Amino acid sequence: MTDIQRIGVAARYSDLVIHGDKAYLSGYVPESTLDQGASEQIRDILGQIEQSLTEIGSDKSKLLHATIWLADIAFYDEMNAVWDGWVLPGHAPARVCVESRLADLDYKLEIQVIAAL
Amino acid sequence: MTDIQRIGVAARYSDLVIHGDKAYLSGYVPESTLDQGASEQIRDILGQIEQSLTEIGSDKSKLLHATIWLADIAFYDEMNAVWDGWVLPGHAPARVCVESRLADLDYKLEIQVIAAL
Amino acid sequence: MTDIQRIGVAARYSDLVIHGDKAYLSGYVPESTLDQGASEQIRDILGQIEQSLTEIGSDKSKLLHATIWLADIAFYDEMNAVWDGWVLPGHAPARVCVESRLADLDYKLEIQVIAAL
Repeated sequence: MTDIQRIGVAARYSDLVIHGDKAYLSGYVPESTLDQGASEQIRDILGQIEQSLTEIGSDKSKLLHATIWLADIAFYDEMNAVWDGWVLPGHAPARVCVESRLADLDYKLEIQVIAAL
Repeated sequence: MTDIQRIGVAARYSDLVIHGDKAYLSGYVPESTLDQGASEQIRDILGQIEQSLTEIGSDKSKLLHATIWLADIAFYDEMNAVWDGWVLPGHAPARVCVESRLADLDYKLEIQVIAAL
Repeated sequence: MTDIQRIGVAARYSDLVIHGDKAYLSGYVPESTLDQGASEQIRDILGQIEQSLTEIGSDKSKLLHATIWLADIAFYDEMNAVWDGWVLPGHAPARVCVESRLADLDYKLEIQVIAAL
């Protein structure tokens, strides 16, 4: 049996769950940029993801998979402009990007990743 | 090569697939509560998930990740009221919850989880 | 630390990422069938997935999980007619199928899989 380690545990979800040499993150949403545009919100989210990865001794060179939900697919280019600059060259994760309505109307996007330790 | 074990195998999908020390479940949908509300449907689905986990020697303390699709994001609070009470304190999985139209108009939600054995 | 191997690496995403004995593929979309129907597009996508699996020494008997996003849930039956014939009997992956608007209006569906090596 492989140990399970949970970080940022709440009643509803954990921010991330480590099992073996993989970390499963929750869908991360904007925190400090709720009233701002998709560019600001993706920077906000990617910053949070990076911080969480650092806390567990991982980093963005170890991303395995990312799923991006856009509240409006029209944000696609604006999101990618920030995403493309954030991804470490040669270390891009597998990725999915689709449109879905999100839990808060102020969220323009939500991102969930799986990373290696 | 790690063995793959499939449970509830049909032509279209398996209810769950075990690989190594992880189980990947299909998106579970309501079975006995098709004409009922989101509260009843999530209880129905979580019951099915729990039963599947039991069958493979796992349980809800070993959930790694959950994705919840709501047919209408308006079901968010109703779904959470049941979810929050179901999750084992200190063992919440990483989670995503978004809106998507589902395969049957009677489905108010669908849940897919990854669990450790 | 388990090695990470990336195939089809671009600035935005990798076609697939291998970690340990699992491969995480990106969401695959139609390439040569953009102006065609859902049947043609799923054949196109499944062909690409099969080719990618072959390249890494895997195959469709080793699919663990598949997520299918339909641009319109009305494509459900048409998609399944092809899917059911493609899946190797006894080896169906766990599966989710939901509706989401996709990055290109010509995409009728997008499929993402996780496979064992």
